[in-house]
Amino acid sequence: MDKLRAALLGATGMVGQRFVKLLTGHRMFELTVLAASPRSAGKRYREAAHWCVEGDVPEEVADLRVVRVGLEEVRREDEVDVVFSAIPSELAREIEPEFARAGIPVISDASAFRMEEDVPILIGEVNPDHLKLVKLQARRGWRSFIVTSPNCTTNELMIALKPLMDRFGIRRVIVSTMQALSGAGWTGVPSMAIADNVIPYIRNEEEKVEREALKILGRFDGSRIVPAELEISASCHRVNVLEGHLEAVFVELSRGADVEEVKEAMRKFRGRPQELGLPTAPENPIIVREEEDRPQPRLDRYAGGGMSIVVGRVRRDKVLENGVKFLVLGHNTIRGAAGNAILNAELAVSEGYI
Amino acid sequence: MDKLRAALLGATGMVGQRFVKLLTGHRMFELTVLAASPRSAGKRYREAAHWCVEGDVPEEVADLRVVRVGLEEVRREDEVDVVFSAIPSELAREIEPEFARAGIPVISDASAFRMEEDVPILIGEVNPDHLKLVKLQARRGWRSFIVTSPNCTTNELMIALKPLMDRFGIRRVIVSTMQALSGAGWTGVPSMAIADNVIPYIRNEEEKVEREALKILGRFDGSRIVPAELEISASCHRVNVLEGHLEAVFVELSRGADVEEVKEAMRKFRGRPQELGLPTAPENPIIVREEEDRPQPRLDRYAGGGMSIVVGRVRRDKVLENGVKFLVLGHNTIRGAAGNAILNAELAVSEGYI
Amino acid sequence: MDKLRAALLGATGMVGQRFVKLLTGHRMFELTVLAASPRSAGKRYREAAHWCVEGDVPEEVADLRVVRVGLEEVRREDEVDVVFSAIPSELAREIEPEFARAGIPVISDASAFRMEEDVPILIGEVNPDHLKLVKLQARRGWRSFIVTSPNCTTNELMIALKPLMDRFGIRRVIVSTMQALSGAGWTGVPSMAIADNVIPYIRNEEEKVEREALKILGRFDGSRIVPAELEISASCHRVNVLEGHLEAVFVELSRGADVEEVKEAMRKFRGRPQELGLPTAPENPIIVREEEDRPQPRLDRYAGGGMSIVVGRVRRDKVLENGVKFLVLGHNTIRGAAGNAILNAELAVSEGYI
Amino acid sequence: MDKLRAALLGATGMVGQRFVKLLTGHRMFELTVLAASPRSAGKRYREAAHWCVEGDVPEEVADLRVVRVGLEEVRREDEVDVVFSAIPSELAREIEPEFARAGIPVISDASAFRMEEDVPILIGEVNPDHLKLVKLQARRGWRSFIVTSPNCTTNELMIALKPLMDRFGIRRVIVSTMQALSGAGWTGVPSMAIADNVIPYIRNEEEKVEREALKILGRFDGSRIVPAELEISASCHRVNVLEGHLEAVFVELSRGADVEEVKEAMRKFRGRPQELGLPTAPENPIIVREEEDRPQPRLDRYAGGGMSIVVGRVRRDKVLENGVKFLVLGHNTIRGAAGNAILNAELAVSEGYI
Repeated sequence: MDKLRAALLGATGMVGQRFVKLLTGHRMFELTVLAASPRSAGKRYREAAHWCVEGDVPEEVADLRVVRVGLEEVRREDEVDVVFSAIPSELAREIEPEFARAGIPVISDASAFRMEEDVPILIGEVNPDHLKLVKLQARRGWRSFIVTSPNCTTNELMIALKPLMDRFGIRRVIVSTMQALSGAGWTGVPSMAIADNVIPYIRNEEEKVEREALKILGRFDGSRIVPAELEISASCHRVNVLEGHLEAVFVELSRGADVEEVKEAMRKFRGRPQELGLPTAPENPIIVREEEDRPQPRLDRYAGGGMSIVVGRVRRDKVLENGVKFLVLGHNTIRGAAGNAILNAELAVSEGYI
Repeated sequence: MDKLRAALLGATGMVGQRFVKLLTGHRMFELTVLAASPRSAGKRYREAAHWCVEGDVPEEVADLRVVRVGLEEVRREDEVDVVFSAIPSELAREIEPEFARAGIPVISDASAFRMEEDVPILIGEVNPDHLKLVKLQARRGWRSFIVTSPNCTTNELMIALKPLMDRFGIRRVIVSTMQALSGAGWTGVPSMAIADNVIPYIRNEEEKVEREALKILGRFDGSRIVPAELEISASCHRVNVLEGHLEAVFVELSRGADVEEVKEAMRKFRGRPQELGLPTAPENPIIVREEEDRPQPRLDRYAGGGMSIVVGRVRRDKVLENGVKFLVLGHNTIRGAAGNAILNAELAVSEGYI
Repeated sequence: MDKLRAALLGATGMVGQRFVKLLTGHRMFELTVLAASPRSAGKRYREAAHWCVEGDVPEEVADLRVVRVGLEEVRREDEVDVVFSAIPSELAREIEPEFARAGIPVISDASAFRMEEDVPILIGEVNPDHLKLVKLQARRGWRSFIVTSPNCTTNELMIALKPLMDRFGIRRVIVSTMQALSGAGWTGVPSMAIADNVIPYIRNEEEKVEREALKILGRFDGSRIVPAELEISASCHRVNVLEGHLEAVFVELSRGADVEEVKEAMRKFRGRPQELGLPTAPENPIIVREEEDRPQPRLDRYAGGGMSIVVGRVRRDKVLENGVKFLVLGHNTIRGAAGNAILNAELAVSEGYI
Repeated sequence: MDKLRAALLGATGMVGQRFVKLLTGHRMFELTVLAASPRSAGKRYREAAHWCVEGDVPEEVADLRVVRVGLEEVRREDEVDVVFSAIPSELAREIEPEFARAGIPVISDASAFRMEEDVPILIGEVNPDHLKLVKLQARRGWRSFIVTSPNCTTNELMIALKPLMDRFGIRRVIVSTMQALSGAGWTGVPSMAIADNVIPYIRNEEEKVEREALKILGRFDGSRIVPAELEISASCHRVNVLEGHLEAVFVELSRGADVEEVKEAMRKFRGRPQELGLPTAPENPIIVREEEDRPQPRLDRYAGGGMSIVVGRVRRDKVLENGVKFLVLGHNTIRGAAGNAILNAELAVSEGYI
């Protein structure tokens, strides 16, 4: 099949660079337009991006001329079939609808529309049927739609919880995070702030996790998402790690389960992306490790190309009823951002939405 | 009063060095004997210790000749009134009773005797009456006694929970830790292991926290400690921080309390060491900060000379009944080790046990 | 004597905070005005400064109301006797002369006027007689004067070289630096940039070192500074260390000297501040260590309260004629900035310039 | 051609793991025997190695049974054609000759035999003709030979200097290093030692650089290596970086050269491995970057698969006659160890020595 032509909004940032890397040589999509802030516009991508992911700027896009973020600017470059968005939320609120209205589907990593009733927060393996929600966006007078990805911290937690919810039911979740620096962007955390330190606060993060989870794990009843009936509490902290969010999770299941059952449920877990064989789908969405000291961010973040989450130290928790506790790690800018969005786009294509 | 003459076992290690620093110029105790492993024995302290705490080796002890750890070796140097112990647990099991039997009280940081029925795990502010337990050690045929300090991770958690238990009652506690490197000793964590990483496992740590807590918060009924009736679950992790254990704590209180009440209970908390005006007692055992991003290990670990714990981000937890969540930080080798032991010794002297 | 009343320009930045800390309880100066950017103006210092040096904001200044940087703004608060300046260079170029013109001496850490012919770059121990240069500033129509401090990297190098120049003569110097993060200010180096990394470039740093050195080590002939006749080449690099610049120095002396002579020259070195017993003068400007692995930034940066430099590993260099090589460490925001400036002010007072 | 069968001595260490990774799927060699310390012997490689390089243990060797380091032990497993050695130097001194005597060529990373008159310190691109030296080892009564690789710090410096020596001549070299943690092995540098710190000393490192360089850059006159007639002085320091040694180099050339000529000489530099198209030879031994802040260890260490060195900031040095200064970075366990040894083996095969 001919590749779909894609634009990337926010191409020079850290998540933007991940998009570029993951879309290079992609068999469904071809990046034909790179858009960024006015400061970058007019420069070749090679000069505009302060490249900071592994390797060098991919040759395919290195000489593309960056345009400003905007419908007209993108259109002037190419008639794209899809838009990937990695722009700040305030800007996304204004810009993304322009594309949807004009008939160009928006696959977004921004938080702007996540909590809108007719917009899915999509994780291919967890709630693929929420994609149906986009049809309701026609009521807005849009010819196409917006699909969002969850916050990076929420993402890996949802994947870990999904098989437990399906098999045992979940009543309560307590999660304490140790999050990587890249989640705050290149200049987000000064080195003076984090060297020999932990910062026990990430603005809005706990609220996002608690709010998004109920929607993602909710049920689409044909007209709306009925939120999941579990309770979730988060405490979010920044540690001195480049990439990979680690989370200590305590879960109260609806029914008793022994540790081996829990691990098996996770190991066997497959979702719609695996069924469809989507290009970015990892073979195993969840890798369960048996070592006593894993997962570790530096050693495990690239599991499954950064698209698998890694669970370890699954053990009983005796404080919660039917309690189980474990650690989960995900690559926050791949699985937790660009990779998840690309998987969403692949799913939307395969399911006929794009 | 004349100072009591003290020996220090394990004088060259990291906790040993903290003891040396805190006991320099102490108004109750004078370090007259420094004991360490055979490798160090015979050297001057200045040469034997690879000094790694702030400043230089205190002049008062720099030229003391280090002896081997052992009753005879210590006695050959001086008739000491008290022994501080910072030796490995296996060695402590063998050596500490020799001193107690010989009539020399042992104030220990080792874990060897913590769970013995007639040995207190003492935190001056939390369970000072447990000191009475040492009288039962006479049954062992000992002329003196052993007092232990809790594990560093347990210590700060106990101090934070004590005022909540007293005022509101506690049913359940979930704690997720971000622990400093010094807790593992100078060579405990290779730099290759922790750079750009978190290690989500510390051997025996979760068990220690869960076990020691119930004893420390328990009630001495005249003949034994009746364990506290709360439930506690821990997940322990090592982060790239030199000193200062940070813990995310989720608590289910026995009765509802609003956040301000919880903070006030913590702020007003004072214990026996404060009443007695003990030299190492911090003015405020608990400092509650209001900033949204504190406590931070690097900025807060030296609060109260390293003897105060610092609590922050006290907020409601909606998952647990009457739930509250917060962060707590303590200096793991001062409050969590040497400082707590010295405070124990001061308490034992003031209460007439030494 | 009554304390001199002092204003501090740039009070909220990292160097500004060091000034505040060092001037608290100072026996010559009292901080009565704190000035900072418009963003901070009007707030109490406690709120305006994102306090990041050890301990808490000193109570003496915590509630001072911050004013905008400017002559009128400062004067409206108090008739100060001296102004300390820790503002950015472009701003300094404009603001500092206003104070000098108005008769208020300016003790500056900014680079703006360093290379002006009639302005000294002053290090109390190295070139105290350069202070005479300020009299020439009367030609500008100023009623008072500006004194500058060198760049932090230059500072410690100059102190280390001074006794060698005096005793053996110096022909050539090659220096390779490993500089701390604080040198770039709180937000200067993103954590993503420096974690698991070294950045082998610091803008303008090599030029500053090479240029300032010749002036500082030069001779005041009554009308101008005759630059020193040595050659110096620097390569400057940023490493993942909070405070303390470490420099590897290779020196070609004018005559042969053995390593012990070099160390003795450094150890015996005392300057005018030591003669005068100035409050901020360290007892030993240079501490020479004999261990094979010192100086180390974390262990040695607070030597002499951060005002001593620490030299180690003095050894022969066989590539340069009469060659010697060693390492030197200085606290870049104390000796290398605020502390040096305060010492300059003390010298100016003692010598009758203020 | 059939692959040569290879044994690896020291297979579980960090350099050993690099060998394993680089030899997996190699077109000339097949690892059939993995040898390590008695502690590992008998275990499957998967269990014996605490795997710490990227990705997982390669499946090809994961289940190989590890044997003890020793000629008999290796032979009992397989009749190997070549032995790679990554064992400690003292052990190498004893073990490596046994293999050479028995007719099995030893490609070693150990320092034991580097300075022996009849043993080459070989870098394929720099001194391929030194390989001829191995014929002299027959005098020892050996049926085969030992080839060594230089110390990792020496290696990248030699590659950077070679084209300058060939084209301009070199008189003097001063080098100041910022070396990675992996150079000291997994447990070599405790995290407590290096966090927020630099350690300005690496045992024997400066001596090795200074000594090995003259031999490597020397000339084989048919019977011996005539040492190069340049002078070299090193100052070696450990920084908090996982992999990649960065070196600041100051060079006095024999004749004047402008910066562009120097960069061109480096860029055009190719060696015998490139001529022969050896599998591990990087296309460009030296990559010269033009950005003002490169090379950086984290961003550049994997250039050319870790086999290219990266040079940056080439500029004039005005202190040395015909002076030039620059930075050079190399991956210390690939180019600086395992990769260089494998390239040596490839060269020895291609040139008919194996």
